[in-house]
Amino acid sequence: MISKLITEIKKKNAPVVVGLDPQLSFLPKFLLDKAVAERGESLEAVSDAIYEYNKSLIDATYDLIPAVKPQVAMYEQFGISGVEAFKKTVDYAHEKGLIVIGDIKRGDIGSTSEAYAIGHIGTVTVGSKTFAPFDEDIVTVNPYLGSDGVKPFIDVCNKCDKGIFVLVKTSNPSSGEFQDKSIGDKTLYEEVADTVAAWGETSMDGDYSNVGAVVGATYPEMGIELRRRMPKSYILVPGYGAQGGKGSDLKGFFNEDGLGAIVNSSRGIIAAYKNEKYASFGEEGFADAARQATIDMIKDITEAIA
Amino acid sequence: MISKLITEIKKKNAPVVVGLDPQLSFLPKFLLDKAVAERGESLEAVSDAIYEYNKSLIDATYDLIPAVKPQVAMYEQFGISGVEAFKKTVDYAHEKGLIVIGDIKRGDIGSTSEAYAIGHIGTVTVGSKTFAPFDEDIVTVNPYLGSDGVKPFIDVCNKCDKGIFVLVKTSNPSSGEFQDKSIGDKTLYEEVADTVAAWGETSMDGDYSNVGAVVGATYPEMGIELRRRMPKSYILVPGYGAQGGKGSDLKGFFNEDGLGAIVNSSRGIIAAYKNEKYASFGEEGFADAARQATIDMIKDITEAIA
Repeated sequence: MISKLITEIKKKNAPVVVGLDPQLSFLPKFLLDKAVAERGESLEAVSDAIYEYNKSLIDATYDLIPAVKPQVAMYEQFGISGVEAFKKTVDYAHEKGLIVIGDIKRGDIGSTSEAYAIGHIGTVTVGSKTFAPFDEDIVTVNPYLGSDGVKPFIDVCNKCDKGIFVLVKTSNPSSGEFQDKSIGDKTLYEEVADTVAAWGETSMDGDYSNVGAVVGATYPEMGIELRRRMPKSYILVPGYGAQGGKGSDLKGFFNEDGLGAIVNSSRGIIAAYKNEKYASFGEEGFADAARQATIDMIKDITEAIA
Repeated sequence: MISKLITEIKKKNAPVVVGLDPQLSFLPKFLLDKAVAERGESLEAVSDAIYEYNKSLIDATYDLIPAVKPQVAMYEQFGISGVEAFKKTVDYAHEKGLIVIGDIKRGDIGSTSEAYAIGHIGTVTVGSKTFAPFDEDIVTVNPYLGSDGVKPFIDVCNKCDKGIFVLVKTSNPSSGEFQDKSIGDKTLYEEVADTVAAWGETSMDGDYSNVGAVVGATYPEMGIELRRRMPKSYILVPGYGAQGGKGSDLKGFFNEDGLGAIVNSSRGIIAAYKNEKYASFGEEGFADAARQATIDMIKDITEAIA
């Protein structure tokens, strides 16, 4: 899968992923009003509005970007109908030729991680038929449970040509609370990174591995060190834009070949219309604002790493 | 919420939770055949069979136990309809007066953890109406992202009288890979435990905190130490039975007052009919086998901690 992602990144000259994280406060009022008029004040109405929102965002950006990253929490918060909107978003992104990175951050003991892997990037067989339940292409995985929590995902990557990004150093302010702790001569996140590099050897796909890492844009110094420690792992970089990461911080996340990282922005793109810079698009122009913000982000990053 | 759980544990004299983790291989064939006859070879058929299975298991055990713990991965693996079966299981368990521990092991950056917390143990407002999307009572949480990944869950605990169990030392064989690493004069899991104890102070509910911990039955020595480090945190103990934990290993997880821990068994109860010891119940008697296995487990544990 990683070679497919790299092909798309090169084709579009955009190491960028748009995070489809539809918080209720981001939804343009007219979309929510329309859905409520049709389905009443309900979780189903919100979920319909989310799907319409995502569809417009995908329509406005799919020719610019290789992938989208829906954050499943933002759908789970609206219950079953929210999860349905998640699945419909995955399917619509695929229709438009996009790779889908499911930001699910799952991780559990072996048999349970296997179930997550099957549900999100694998297949399940019922009698004579086989189904891909959520059908994402790549998912994020939490490493706290160690190898037997991660390997079931890698097995599915190998079987179904899929990928994972393992949390190494997350973008949030308190990520250092455990991740930065010193264990012997390195930090916990460096230990996790070394383990990711080793896991990665078991699922190579061209020059890079299907086992990548998550490292926040908000920690550029650590990005340089982690790039070195995991030379064959793609790095998914959240935290650009609204969380504070800038293009100029990102060079160190990339390899000499200009590859090796893909940078996510969620709020900065999908809620661009709420940003002073793009306010002229208005709420009705939310998708055009997202398109312009995507163009600006791609320029910022490709210039920074040139 | 923890005081409600304690009341139920005392009332039933059973510090035991049944894990509703319906793997496809556990489902009695006649249940799956019936569902497939009605809905064809489909994820919907499997999900219907899972719900019927859970319903019978709950009917056979609800008078014996305080709580059930559905593992959401086992439902997510069957897509949307699987998640629907999860929600129906939560609702049915509530109808029968059970507390529901959603084993979801979520954890993310602040705003995203907030969405998970809202979706699983909180409420969401749409216009003039308020909904509890998945409506569990307690959920498991992954601490790798640090305080700002956990605090949104605690905020919802305080607002909605709910609880969490934070992963400290998990039951799986490779849990030590990161969790046992030494950081200064303690291990990572001890550091997490100390942090859980501190988080717990912010959500007290009687003698115990709504912020509990997960510590595997497979590590009894560590259970003793962790009991000491988190005196006010209830410990959810997975790994009993099929994973190797025995009643005699568990005394150290409890406080002097006989409280402080609740032990989970999944496979050992719900697939008891596949175990030689309960084979006489037959596949049709799977629920009666589960009841007997629950009675035996409660006896094993209450005797061990007496």
